[in-house]
Amino acid sequence: MSTVPHYIMSKDNPQIKRVRALLQSSRERREAGAFVVEGVRLVEEALAAGRVATLFVCPELLTAHARSRVFLDDLRDDGDYALTHVTPDVFAAVADTDSPQGVVAVCLMPEEAALGPTATLAVLLDGVQDPGNAGMILRAAAAANADGVIFGPGSVDPYNPKVLRGAMGAHFRTALLNLRSESAVRACAGLLPQRVMAAAQDGARYDSVDWTQPTLLIVGAEAHGASDLGVSLQTAAASVPLARGVESLNVAMAAGVLLFEAVRQRSPDAAH
Amino acid sequence: MSTVPHYIMSKDNPQIKRVRALLQSSRERREAGAFVVEGVRLVEEALAAGRVATLFVCPELLTAHARSRVFLDDLRDDGDYALTHVTPDVFAAVADTDSPQGVVAVCLMPEEAALGPTATLAVLLDGVQDPGNAGMILRAAAAANADGVIFGPGSVDPYNPKVLRGAMGAHFRTALLNLRSESAVRACAGLLPQRVMAAAQDGARYDSVDWTQPTLLIVGAEAHGASDLGVSLQTAAASVPLARGVESLNVAMAAGVLLFEAVRQRSPDAAH
Repeated sequence: MSTVPHYIMSKDNPQIKRVRALLQSSRERREAGAFVVEGVRLVEEALAAGRVATLFVCPELLTAHARSRVFLDDLRDDGDYALTHVTPDVFAAVADTDSPQGVVAVCLMPEEAALGPTATLAVLLDGVQDPGNAGMILRAAAAANADGVIFGPGSVDPYNPKVLRGAMGAHFRTALLNLRSESAVRACAGLLPQRVMAAAQDGARYDSVDWTQPTLLIVGAEAHGASDLGVSLQTAAASVPLARGVESLNVAMAAGVLLFEAVRQRSPDAAH
Repeated sequence: MSTVPHYIMSKDNPQIKRVRALLQSSRERREAGAFVVEGVRLVEEALAAGRVATLFVCPELLTAHARSRVFLDDLRDDGDYALTHVTPDVFAAVADTDSPQGVVAVCLMPEEAALGPTATLAVLLDGVQDPGNAGMILRAAAAANADGVIFGPGSVDPYNPKVLRGAMGAHFRTALLNLRSESAVRACAGLLPQRVMAAAQDGARYDSVDWTQPTLLIVGAEAHGASDLGVSLQTAAASVPLARGVESLNVAMAAGVLLFEAVRQRSPDAAH
């Protein structure tokens, strides 16, 4: 395909307004079933996953970046999405980052994701509100080969731009369950018989837990800890031992340490 | 002590200007040997460590916070620092956070910190520039009972306000070596015979490394990896196994997983 892309020169263009609405409002995203990713790397992942509906490119900005040449060449050969060029001014209106790379994609949320009956490792974000932490946990879960990540009631919207940035493409690699009702979370959590709360203190030593069992890791809120829902679901609690006087780890860090303990125990050639 | 605190009502007060300079400039901090922490929790840690030189309190803002009553009571009994009250307007000029808690402290950097000859675990930040990542690594290192954290050339200033926020008081619990010359880093690193590079890929499996040996963990820059200095120091490289297609973990997450593997192996009652 080598059709000439559509070219938008006004910030008041309805498509541009829609991108801004999708960036700013979780409600808009939910109603549209769509979200926005920015930057060469994330857009590449979205393209590879076949999830891009519309691609907005600002050629002037994109060519300033090292990886852009290959990227632009790739774009010529694909016709599965609408390709639109925009001016630097218009791009600034839809860019959410300080040093925009000149490419933004409107992506489609997947059909309702679910944990399959063969799932052996999943994470429940139980009221995690900080988008940086949620993104980092999602990234770690994808790296640890988790079967899914559940965003429960009170957690940040998984398609928040900061979550997307922190997760570095994990949205396109891991089943993401955006469940806003307790009953939906209960039904899903019930698929995994062992449900381990990440506890700042007073849990079992995390390496004494048998992570080779099918397991749901429950990660509570940064400040307030687990919700009533999380507590009612848990079958065990695990803590990372901390130096004296240290109250807690960052929740994303704690989740990562537990997830990779599961990876370690499950590895056929575990050294210890 | 119950003297009436000094009261500042103007943003142009030289003390207020100095706090702003310390917040904004690493050079000002270095020349003054001082830095600024904000919020009840961090200030409590600074007070406990005996590092506060001047405490700025805005009573109107502080009393809006739950922990403030106890905190204010404590303040009455201590005379080791200068206590100054400020108006909400003046406080806004020195607050670095979105929801200020009404307390800011100018703290003194410690005398030149060093790794002692009995050190068994330390971290070298080898060009880590993101303050959130640096703060999170510092917090994890303190929780993992590390003997020190070296900020090497090209790394963010450890007293940057965002590093302080992310580290959650670890600055007052861990020896912090702010070394800007390669020779100083070399001299310090030489105290630890095993120096393990955190490698995104191609290192030895991290759990096959013997972390019970005295070890320096080297953490490279987010985007560019290790520096020539870091590479010349390393005696081994360790990687966390990642799911297929995942390029890397967040550097702070990777550092945390490695640090707690050291804790796990060193624990007398390690379960596996």
